[in-house]
Amino acid sequence: MTTRARPASAGSVTLAEIQAPVAPALSRVGEEMWRIVAVDSVLLNGVSEHLMLMKGKMLRPTLLLLASRAEEAPQSRAAAYAAVVELIHLATLVHDDAVDHSVLRRGMPTINALFTHQVAVIAGDFLYSRAVQELVRLGDLEALRIFAKASNELTLGEMRQLSALDALQFSEEDYEFLIRAKTAALFSGACEVGALCGSARFRETLAEYGSHLGMAFQVADDLLDYTEASETLGKPAGLDLKEHKVTLPLIAALRTMPRSSRAEVDALFDSTEPDEAAIGRVMEIVREEGGLDYARERGEVYASRADDALGGLPESPARRSLQDTLTYVMDRRA
Amino acid sequence: MTTRARPASAGSVTLAEIQAPVAPALSRVGEEMWRIVAVDSVLLNGVSEHLMLMKGKMLRPTLLLLASRAEEAPQSRAAAYAAVVELIHLATLVHDDAVDHSVLRRGMPTINALFTHQVAVIAGDFLYSRAVQELVRLGDLEALRIFAKASNELTLGEMRQLSALDALQFSEEDYEFLIRAKTAALFSGACEVGALCGSARFRETLAEYGSHLGMAFQVADDLLDYTEASETLGKPAGLDLKEHKVTLPLIAALRTMPRSSRAEVDALFDSTEPDEAAIGRVMEIVREEGGLDYARERGEVYASRADDALGGLPESPARRSLQDTLTYVMDRRA
Repeated sequence: MTTRARPASAGSVTLAEIQAPVAPALSRVGEEMWRIVAVDSVLLNGVSEHLMLMKGKMLRPTLLLLASRAEEAPQSRAAAYAAVVELIHLATLVHDDAVDHSVLRRGMPTINALFTHQVAVIAGDFLYSRAVQELVRLGDLEALRIFAKASNELTLGEMRQLSALDALQFSEEDYEFLIRAKTAALFSGACEVGALCGSARFRETLAEYGSHLGMAFQVADDLLDYTEASETLGKPAGLDLKEHKVTLPLIAALRTMPRSSRAEVDALFDSTEPDEAAIGRVMEIVREEGGLDYARERGEVYASRADDALGGLPESPARRSLQDTLTYVMDRRA
Repeated sequence: MTTRARPASAGSVTLAEIQAPVAPALSRVGEEMWRIVAVDSVLLNGVSEHLMLMKGKMLRPTLLLLASRAEEAPQSRAAAYAAVVELIHLATLVHDDAVDHSVLRRGMPTINALFTHQVAVIAGDFLYSRAVQELVRLGDLEALRIFAKASNELTLGEMRQLSALDALQFSEEDYEFLIRAKTAALFSGACEVGALCGSARFRETLAEYGSHLGMAFQVADDLLDYTEASETLGKPAGLDLKEHKVTLPLIAALRTMPRSSRAEVDALFDSTEPDEAAIGRVMEIVREEGGLDYARERGEVYASRADDALGGLPESPARRSLQDTLTYVMDRRA
């Protein structure tokens, strides 16, 4: 295993810097998204408007566009593919929030909270089938194959999470399967389709980069739930514990914790509505047992593998941004 | 408008008779469905098993296979497409039942009732993305285009239903939009893709037939809710009224009913949990006002149009079955 060489800018990489090489194309993605979801339905337009307002970091479109610029000038259809990957992501978020009965996402009400649970289920189906229609219009069966596979893996990840009978039996292997399906698959797909819009010969290299980056991203995301204040997250900290979701910090901590600590964890997972004090106490236990350090190390391993994959690309502003993305993902605070 | 010539066998057509010309291919469809949804997940396999047990009339696969035999011997991939159309249909049913919180479908518990609401949402996504993956594998962009469009229309229909603020303001035009999107689009798509697996020159003819047949089917289905006993339906009769769903019989009856009857209808729609007596009384009012006769007539108009479309096909066992399907749909009891 190699150690990732951290760039001089470590810790100070901003999203805007990463996005700089693809800023013009990225600025068209929102428009492309609107074109794809345009529909004669007040309700669906309301859903789309809210999702556009909620617009996050546009990380998957950014990756797709950067991947498309590994070498030559990319095809102009890259922006449409970037819109598709974000729509697939949004469709997943809408169903995830509906399934979890979440009320907040990025500091804003979820679709199920703002409209109804029913609207969320149908709106997710709408967004996904529109994304497929756009892929058909673009006419590249390979891109369709990549995104259809990633979408299907997403459902396998969700299902694995739902079928965990005893959450505390969730192993590191289960966790890896889960985040590979839930996050890494679409990150990888975004990068691979990006390659198809630029230099197809980097297809495998970029898919591999995207997969490792996605793993690192999800580990870092799960860490944030243990480390950040609610305000910066846009949702309550400790939410995973509250919802009895077992992520890597807890999996690692469970291995070594003394019986008294384990009893506190068990109590939290036996309680249907754990209180803030119990959540805070378990967060502290996980930290004391080195669960956060372990997860951070694993995240760095994935980031290193992603960095290694980039070795296969020629030097370019896009490659530097893909490298900076690793730093950004590992150091982000929200 | 022409009047449909009812075949000599009117009223006595069985599903087995309709399916006879495609029986060998149809018998392979279940197997093909299993191949497409095969997955390493106990939970998802449980869902698939239940859906296969619940297996309905396989009307959409039957239509696709019949359409593929309008002329020459069809391509062998017709059975795979037939499996895809049934999977898309099942994915829709699973989400519909989840959205409506239905507990029974075809006399069996729904996925949301047997498992959980969450499992139903994710399982629907799983089935749909697997169907898309299979379409990619089959490699015909036209078939993908047709099914993606039909799937998207399904969501538009559902959304129209959810966004009706005052159910009793639902017009015949709204109803037509709804059943076209909810039912006719996929019937039409099944027939059109069938043509692509056989004689593509009948593509438009068969798409038109399927669309009219789908309209007739849904009108007949909505009539059954007013006319049949619960045992034959596999779900409670009067369920639409109980769930405040306004279909064609009621829309027609509302136009002429006296103020006293309208007051009873209003009371039912104001009540969150209408009792059996209130539902029975409104069913009676709808019959008295000629709502059932009106809907039956409209269904016959659609069936006639479907029959007209078949005029464009050469004489064949498949064409005869497509004609018999009209009789079967208009006369069915469950």
